[in-house]
Amino acid sequence: MKPITRIEQALAVAIASGEEEGCPPKLAGAIRHAVFPGGARIRPQLCLAVAQACGDDDPVLSEAAATAIELLHCASLVHDDLPCFDDAPTRRGRASVHFAFGEPLAVLAGDALIVLAFQTLGSAATQSPLRLPLLMKTIGRATGMPHGIVAGQAWECEPRVSLADYQRAKTGSLFAAATIAGAQAAGADSAPWRALGEWLGEAYQVADDIRDVACDSSSLGKPAGQDVALCRPSAARELGLEGAIHHFDRLVAAAIQAIPPCPGAEQMRALVRFEAERLVPKAIAEEVIRVEA
Amino acid sequence: MKPITRIEQALAVAIASGEEEGCPPKLAGAIRHAVFPGGARIRPQLCLAVAQACGDDDPVLSEAAATAIELLHCASLVHDDLPCFDDAPTRRGRASVHFAFGEPLAVLAGDALIVLAFQTLGSAATQSPLRLPLLMKTIGRATGMPHGIVAGQAWECEPRVSLADYQRAKTGSLFAAATIAGAQAAGADSAPWRALGEWLGEAYQVADDIRDVACDSSSLGKPAGQDVALCRPSAARELGLEGAIHHFDRLVAAAIQAIPPCPGAEQMRALVRFEAERLVPKAIAEEVIRVEA
Repeated sequence: MKPITRIEQALAVAIASGEEEGCPPKLAGAIRHAVFPGGARIRPQLCLAVAQACGDDDPVLSEAAATAIELLHCASLVHDDLPCFDDAPTRRGRASVHFAFGEPLAVLAGDALIVLAFQTLGSAATQSPLRLPLLMKTIGRATGMPHGIVAGQAWECEPRVSLADYQRAKTGSLFAAATIAGAQAAGADSAPWRALGEWLGEAYQVADDIRDVACDSSSLGKPAGQDVALCRPSAARELGLEGAIHHFDRLVAAAIQAIPPCPGAEQMRALVRFEAERLVPKAIAEEVIRVEA
Repeated sequence: MKPITRIEQALAVAIASGEEEGCPPKLAGAIRHAVFPGGARIRPQLCLAVAQACGDDDPVLSEAAATAIELLHCASLVHDDLPCFDDAPTRRGRASVHFAFGEPLAVLAGDALIVLAFQTLGSAATQSPLRLPLLMKTIGRATGMPHGIVAGQAWECEPRVSLADYQRAKTGSLFAAATIAGAQAAGADSAPWRALGEWLGEAYQVADDIRDVACDSSSLGKPAGQDVALCRPSAARELGLEGAIHHFDRLVAAAIQAIPPCPGAEQMRALVRFEAERLVPKAIAEEVIRVEA
């Protein structure tokens, strides 16, 4: 089965588990809207790819880790879109959750998704229960305090923040968790996999900054120009668009370099190159550099 | 050590774990404000009391379960107070989190507290790791979909809801989790303990409804009269104040009846009676019944 199929199926099972009889129907609708249809599912794909490179001896657990990471990512999008943050009317090309279901249900859908992430993890730890505390630590730290995605979002409320700290928490942490958790779910040493996730996470955030400046809202599927409008730290603001593109290329190269020798190394390099092209297409990069030159 | 001291110490350790170097200081402040000083800490006290009645052979784990339950309760208070729900300016007699720190940090503090609850649980499962999946299931279901406190709050967004379903999810679920988790943390059969938590949870919600009508804001420490103002389901609205007080008395009696034979049964009965008097003091109940007669 293709990894993306495993991920979509595991997400569907997790969401359905919350929709038993007696659940409030609007909340169920808001949660489903937040998760389906998804984006590129890059974090769970990365998690499964690393698990496979490490033997994937407990596929139920690696799918649960991938699912938990994607649910937490979806939760963060729902809450980041709220009126008190970005007040984004659109996400992934259609109405954001609070635009479609109202603010109360958007707050609650995000909360329920965080809980569901941990429920999914807990219920999958039957074959290898001793791996559960490790995975909870990895995924918990990537999400909460002091350096997870929630902390990353909170840096937007501070008067002073370094771009690196902000990006590492807001995006890098969950990417690093994806590679580390992939190894842990397969019972392998996670240390060799941390750097790949960290480089990719930084590259992803820089790509997001580039796209916020260089793309229009319809191709982004969410409002463009938000970093400047909301005075957020941004690589494109700090380095200029061309500088940010060169920085992105260096980060992708570092990520590819960081892939440890393993059976699936070539596929993983291909996955990273494919993602890099999806994020910052060569055509756009060359156009920007030609115009700025 | 007194149970309340164990709880406050465990909460302090959990909160401090998120405050390592490099965490955003305002978020740390908002989280601390949400948890300290606390209310009656009734749910974690109940959890520890049941663990003790069951032998409490892994006190680190029972304290973690109690802490996780209290952190999730605090998270729900922070989010329920948000402008899109109750817009409560006060909580526990001082500013609510969003009044003190702003709405963005209140959303994020609630999110971080949910994550911290599961982190606390995961990091305590060293002596008895096989109890962790059970505890995660119990506490996850009490919090999320389809019947946990998040689902309970979501019933307020539905056009039709039964009072019993609403109260069972919004309050009963976390009380039931407190007794069940107490037994599970001690490696005991949790089935005999479920009824105590369920009766107490229902009694607690009815008491909340009574106090919302019969008390003023200063003695509540939060705005009074909210159920009528926000058209929420309420036992006091459905049964009248006197009817609700009689209902409360019956629920407390059922809770006491449900305490299984165990070494600490007498202390547990005393705890329930003490809580009942704190929630709906006899003097207030008699005054209401005298006036309405």
